[in-house]
Formats: sequence, structure tokens, C-alpha cells
Amino acid sequence: MTLDAVLSRIDDDLAAATDRLIDLLRIPSISTDPAYKADCQTAADWLVADLQSLGIDATKRPTPGHPMVVGHIDAPGPHVLFYGHYDVQPVDPLELWDRAPFDPQIEDTAKGRVIRGRGSSDDKGQLMTFVEACRAWKAVNGSLPCKITFFFEGEEESGSPSLVPFMQENAEELKSDIALICDTGLFQSKTPAIVTMLRGLLGEELTITGATKDLHSGMYGGVAMNPIRVLSRIIAGLHDETGRVTIPGFYDGVPELSPEMAEQWQELGFDYASFLGDVGLSQPAGEQDRTPLEMIWSRPTCEVNGIKGGYTGEGFKTVLPSKASAKISFRLVGEQDPHAIRESFRAWVTAQLPADCTADFRGHGNSGASTMSIEHPAFESARKALSDEWPETAAYVGCGGSIPIAGHFKKILGTDAMLIGFGKDDDQIHSPNEKYDVESFHKGIRSWARVLDAIS
Amino acid sequence: MTLDAVLSRIDDDLAAATDRLIDLLRIPSISTDPAYKADCQTAADWLVADLQSLGIDATKRPTPGHPMVVGHIDAPGPHVLFYGHYDVQPVDPLELWDRAPFDPQIEDTAKGRVIRGRGSSDDKGQLMTFVEACRAWKAVNGSLPCKITFFFEGEEESGSPSLVPFMQENAEELKSDIALICDTGLFQSKTPAIVTMLRGLLGEELTITGATKDLHSGMYGGVAMNPIRVLSRIIAGLHDETGRVTIPGFYDGVPELSPEMAEQWQELGFDYASFLGDVGLSQPAGEQDRTPLEMIWSRPTCEVNGIKGGYTGEGFKTVLPSKASAKISFRLVGEQDPHAIRESFRAWVTAQLPADCTADFRGHGNSGASTMSIEHPAFESARKALSDEWPETAAYVGCGGSIPIAGHFKKILGTDAMLIGFGKDDDQIHSPNEKYDVESFHKGIRSWARVLDAIS
Repeated sequence: MTLDAVLSRIDDDLAAATDRLIDLLRIPSISTDPAYKADCQTAADWLVADLQSLGIDATKRPTPGHPMVVGHIDAPGPHVLFYGHYDVQPVDPLELWDRAPFDPQIEDTAKGRVIRGRGSSDDKGQLMTFVEACRAWKAVNGSLPCKITFFFEGEEESGSPSLVPFMQENAEELKSDIALICDTGLFQSKTPAIVTMLRGLLGEELTITGATKDLHSGMYGGVAMNPIRVLSRIIAGLHDETGRVTIPGFYDGVPELSPEMAEQWQELGFDYASFLGDVGLSQPAGEQDRTPLEMIWSRPTCEVNGIKGGYTGEGFKTVLPSKASAKISFRLVGEQDPHAIRESFRAWVTAQLPADCTADFRGHGNSGASTMSIEHPAFESARKALSDEWPETAAYVGCGGSIPIAGHFKKILGTDAMLIGFGKDDDQIHSPNEKYDVESFHKGIRSWARVLDAIS
Repeated sequence: MTLDAVLSRIDDDLAAATDRLIDLLRIPSISTDPAYKADCQTAADWLVADLQSLGIDATKRPTPGHPMVVGHIDAPGPHVLFYGHYDVQPVDPLELWDRAPFDPQIEDTAKGRVIRGRGSSDDKGQLMTFVEACRAWKAVNGSLPCKITFFFEGEEESGSPSLVPFMQENAEELKSDIALICDTGLFQSKTPAIVTMLRGLLGEELTITGATKDLHSGMYGGVAMNPIRVLSRIIAGLHDETGRVTIPGFYDGVPELSPEMAEQWQELGFDYASFLGDVGLSQPAGEQDRTPLEMIWSRPTCEVNGIKGGYTGEGFKTVLPSKASAKISFRLVGEQDPHAIRESFRAWVTAQLPADCTADFRGHGNSGASTMSIEHPAFESARKALSDEWPETAAYVGCGGSIPIAGHFKKILGTDAMLIGFGKDDDQIHSPNEKYDVESFHKGIRSWARVLDAIS
């Protein structure tokens, strides 16, 4: 049987595949730092050459920033697009790394063998799981199981400024039956996951101004409006006693979880006690009538990410500040409309302002949630394929964060996206000593071989 | 009549007196900056020499910091002590000064002639009003009207670390019948004032800690406790809807204003509309059933002087911070006990903490209010004397700020203090382009001559 032969080939080729990944990890393709611009080109060239070695028609495509890599190979069967990114996070603080971040190597640890180095998990290692699956398939069969478009970005860690324009300009070329994205993690170390819900994100920077200048509290204390107090009152009013957000209309478009999904999540047995315990917490602090998984995957939130006002240095200054400001963000779900929520939030704040206070608003981020339509048959096929590879049945999960690319595929290309990845919570992505388990890499490659087989 | 001759002498000597002040203002005696240590010595030496030229037994007295200047001269009549400080505030930001801060000169402005330079109002110019009054008295009469102790400090702008120990060690030497302090202002530009109430000050730095590290709001948002929200709720609860502080026992020891004082304050016709209007405000924002003067002079307050937490730089970071903190200060009146209020505040905060949150407290400042006993006959004598000099009757006023020295005289030496000064609201003390009106200097000197005459 073809799949078994491919899986064997993957097992036999693991050492060579790891060497190839280590080769790619040596290129310091830090996208946010202009000093590494040439390295981003080198990483793109490396990928073009590697894809070409598989007979794929691959090219490096210029953008105003770092290049895209796009490759096509034709074959019978459905057309899938695979997305990953070759750029990596900066490495600061360098002194916290146990080895040079771009001198990757295999390490034996108490929890098993890992590939240590910047980008090993996010996202070069994950990207290469798919490429290696294709390499094995080609080695065994001389061709690939279906028509595939490879689409690698080099700006994911710096806000993807070129992504939407590139997708818009090359929409016809990038259309496919389904998009596969490998930039997420396992649910738990033995349970593979397909992300079907991504929360959206809306940011608002709110500044309250009272007096025209900072005042001395000895002179004005007691009689003058204090914008820190006004801001605190507004923030305190954002949630009611049950943890619900009080902004009018905030819950418009928030769907209830389907009974099937709720049951499946229940079966996951999410260990929220250790999830919270790892960071020194014990109690879920969100809406009181929701489970912890709902709080982070399927419910919208309002959080304050930063606040400042007055004197914040050492010691004391009895100042009554002129201004106080906060950065407030909303994670959105379902059909919540970021524009409507922004307007409602601003009106709600403005209506509460006491005399002599004004509010200024500055918008940041503005993306709705993405919900994948798991009715697409590829989802159930992929879920079965993943379940065959891993000890536990694959789960449909949510993701508390925002991965805008999934929404772009739907909005710009009309393509559903399936997010499958093999990272683990302890991979230290964006932090010193990033690693990718050899098991993630090995079983990740095998997983893609099974998924390609299943959906072809 | 002696007083008339002294006043004439003051008028005739004004130019020379101004030159002497300008000479003193040229010495950059910035006490908080070690780079100016030698200049503080120079200023003290200057004062010692000037007092000695009046036949006063003056010496520079070492402390662990900058020196004190102490001078004595004997004469029949009561014993008064005069306090002022020769150190000045730093000059930053230097670029906002219209001339070099230590190159003082007389300037003609639309509002009259001013002496421009750092320390002109706070406090060298005010200190010299008393010295010049003594000089004129001595020139006319060959002696001073009463026994006088001069007591000049060089650390007032840097927290007076040596003051209390020095007063304790030299208590017998510094005891007098009444202490005169010249470091305050006129009530309005034509109305002299004697401060009879000084608010105390209590500072608390409150830090709320949730998780053991900063969290990503994509991963934990909705389920993890956010200390900014907890802190905001605490701050929002510090005042009720009528503007009263809610901390249990906070108003213990807060006296009601006597009907006489209330009536006198009423007669002052305080123009709170322009007091607030000058800084862009229109509404008194304190306790709803109190007049604006009560709010700033005779009522206690609770203010937030600074707040910070999470990401406060440019742009947005969706962090859930581990910590959030605020600097909170209380202005105290009457017999309010700072220790009891600190304890009550801490207990009140701690009782409100949700699960998984801790609070850390750091105390700053801790001084009760001072209320002068205006029964001392010097008060009414001085009030009449000031009323004779100025167009408007002198007022007993409160002071929203805290001038701890007055309390020290009472507590350490058992001496009542009378605070009389001639500064104006627009003197820009602690700011660039500090000035002292020539009228303040001139009529200030004349005022002290009248006060000395009246109480001798």
C-alpha cells in the first residue's frame, strides 16, 4: 500500500530530514530587523532550491518587504495550498539562550529529543513537516498525490504587511480547494488538533484628559478632576459582577457552542488547573457560567493590556495628572462586528465622562473572528488521518489568539483553511531556547502524509 | 515714629536690597544635585556674612547634608525665630527658560516689574524680605526690635533629611516664643495671608499581582485574572458618588470648620471659577456638599498620583500583565491619624482582593496636619500689621499642601508657627522662568517691619 511505503520512507529518512531542517535553521531570517534582510533572501532562496529539487515549479516573488516563495506542482485530484512562514522572531535576550540561537542541534532532554534553535517550532520546523511529507511521497511514487501550491511568507513575525496585497494581486494563482496552515500546536502532547475557531482582535487606546496641565495635589487636590480616577471608573465598569462585558451590543453575533462541539470539548478533559497553575493562578476569572475552554476559545473578552498616568518613577510625586490612558483589547468570536463594537465602546465611554473630561480614542487592529466550516469533507478526512497517527483521537479546537491568515484565505480567495500543527506548549516560541520535539517533527511529517492520502 | 522711619528707610534702600538678592540668586544652590554641593556651601557662607554685617552672631552649622545657618541677636521683648531656606529647585528643562536661571535680573513685564531667576520666589527672595526688614530696622534704630533667631535650611527642596535631627540636637538653642516662616504666598495678589491650617500627607504605593508572569491575552485572555482590572476596581471604589472617601474610619478626627472661619472664608470671595479656569477646568470635583475652599484647605482628600501596568509604549501588545500598581496619596486635616488611615486603607484593599491576587504596599510620607492656635496674640497682631500694609485685609487661610516644618516647630520645640509669605500663584516656582514680583519683595520687607513692630 502506497501510504505504508511513504511512512516507511519517512522513518528511514528522518536523520536526513532533520539535517535539512538544521541547515534551514542556521539562516538567521529575523524579519523585523533590517540587519537581517539579506538572510531573509537567503532563506527564501534555500526554500526555492529545495522545492525545485522535488520537481516543483518554485520561484522567489518580490514584495515591498521580504519575498514570498510560491511553488506549484500539478497532479490529479484536489488542489491544496500549503502555507507556512520562513521568518523567525528576534532572539533577545541573547544571554538567556543556552546555546547560540542560530547554531541549532539535536539535544537529549528529560522529556525526549528536541531540535533546539530559533525557528525550530515557529515556523521552519512545522513548514518542513509538509515539505518532507511531499519529498517522501515523491520518492516512493515519483509524483505527488494531488495538485499542490506551496506558499511561504517571510513577514509573519513582523505583521505581514505584504501579505494581503500579494494575495489580492495573485488571487487567481493562489486559489485552491482547501488551504493547509501549519503554524499551530497539538492540543495536548498526544492529542492532535485541527483549529476550527480563531478569535478576532480589536484594540482601542483610550486617553482621558482633565486639566490642561499636570497639577500639584497640594494646590488642587480635592477640587480638580483626576483623570486616573475617571479612567479607573470606566475600566471598572467594563465588566459586571458575573464577568460579562457591559458595552451595549457587545454580545451581538456571539454564537452558542453547538451541543456536539460542547460535548467534544468536554471529552477533551482540559486540565485547566495545571494550565492556570503553571502561571500561579487557580481560578478561572472569566464569565461565571462558562467553562475554561469556552472562556479562551469561544467567548469574547475585553482586557486591559496597559495603563499609565501621572508619576510612575521611583518614590512619590503628588501630581494630579492632566492625562491618563489605557490600551484595551477585545477578542471577538462568531459574527461580532469589530466596527460596531468600536463605535459602541466609544459611545459608552463618552456617555460616562464627567464635566471637564474629554476622551480621545486611537484604534489598533480590527479583525473579526474566523470560524471554519467543518462541513468541508477535508476536515473529517484529516481528523481521521491524524487520529490514526497519534495515540489520542484528533480534536476540533478553538484558538484564543488571532491568526489573520485564515480569514484572508476565506475573504480574499474564498478558500477554507485547515489549521493543523504539531507544536507543544513548552516549545518556547518567541522566547529564548526555542525547540521543536523530534517527535513533533517526525510524527508531523507522517501526519501530513496521512492527511494528503486521506483528502486526495 | 520708629516704624515710619524704618518703612522710609526700606523704600530708600530698595535698589540696594534688590542688588543683594540678585547677588544671592547668582549662587546655584541646587540641593538635590550633588554637583552643586559646593554652591550650597557658598550660599550658606553668603548668608552668614550678611547676618554678621548686621551684628548678628551667625555661623554655618554642618549636617550630614548641606549646612544650616543659625544666627542669634539679643534684644528686649519677645523671642522670635525666623525660618527660610537657601536651597533651590533644579532648573530642568533648561531650554524652557527665557534667560539663564542663575543670571537673575529685573524685568519689566505687562504685570509689573519682576526679579527673574531660580529661587527668586522660592525661597531666597522671601527669606531676604525678613533680613532686609531687620537691616532697615537696625539702620534706623541701631538695634533690632526684639530677640531674634535666624534659622536657614539648605535641604528644603530635597526632603529636609537633616532638619529633624538638627532641631532635636539643638532644641534648646532653637526654642522661641513664636516661629515665623516665610515660604507661602498671598491669598490673592492684593490680599496678604497667614496660613493657619496645613494639610498632612500620607502616601501609599499599591501593587496588585496576579499571575507569576506576563501572559499572552490570546492564550489566557478571558480565563486569567487581570491585575489592571482589579486595581481599577479598587481605585473606582475609593470614593462614593458624592465624592466622599469610602475607607472605614477615614473621617475620624476631621473637624468641622468653625462658623467664624467659615464666615471669613466666605468673605474672601474666592474666585474658584478662574482658579479652575486657569487650568482648563470648570467644576469643583470634590465632596459635593463642600465649598471649593474647604475642598482644598480644610477637607481631607484621596488622590491617585500615578498608575501603571502592562504595555505602555507605542502601538499595542496583547499582554495580560502580572502586576499593576498605583501611587495613592491622602491629604490629611485636623486630628486624622496617618498610621490609622494607612492600616485601614491596607485592610480595606486586602478585603477586596479576588482569588489569585495579592497586594503589596509601600509607604511614603506620613505626616499629620498642622493647625495653628490663632489664640496666640501674635496672630492677631500680625494680621493687623499686614492689613495696614496691603490694600486688602489680611486673611487666615488654609494651605492644601504640606509644609512639615510647621509641625516640627510645634512637636520638637513646642513653638507655634506663623506662616506669612508674599509669593504669587504665577511665580512659576519649581518651573522654568521663576520670578518674584518687585512689589512682593518691597511690600514683603515692609510687612515684616510692621509685623516685628506689632509683636514686639
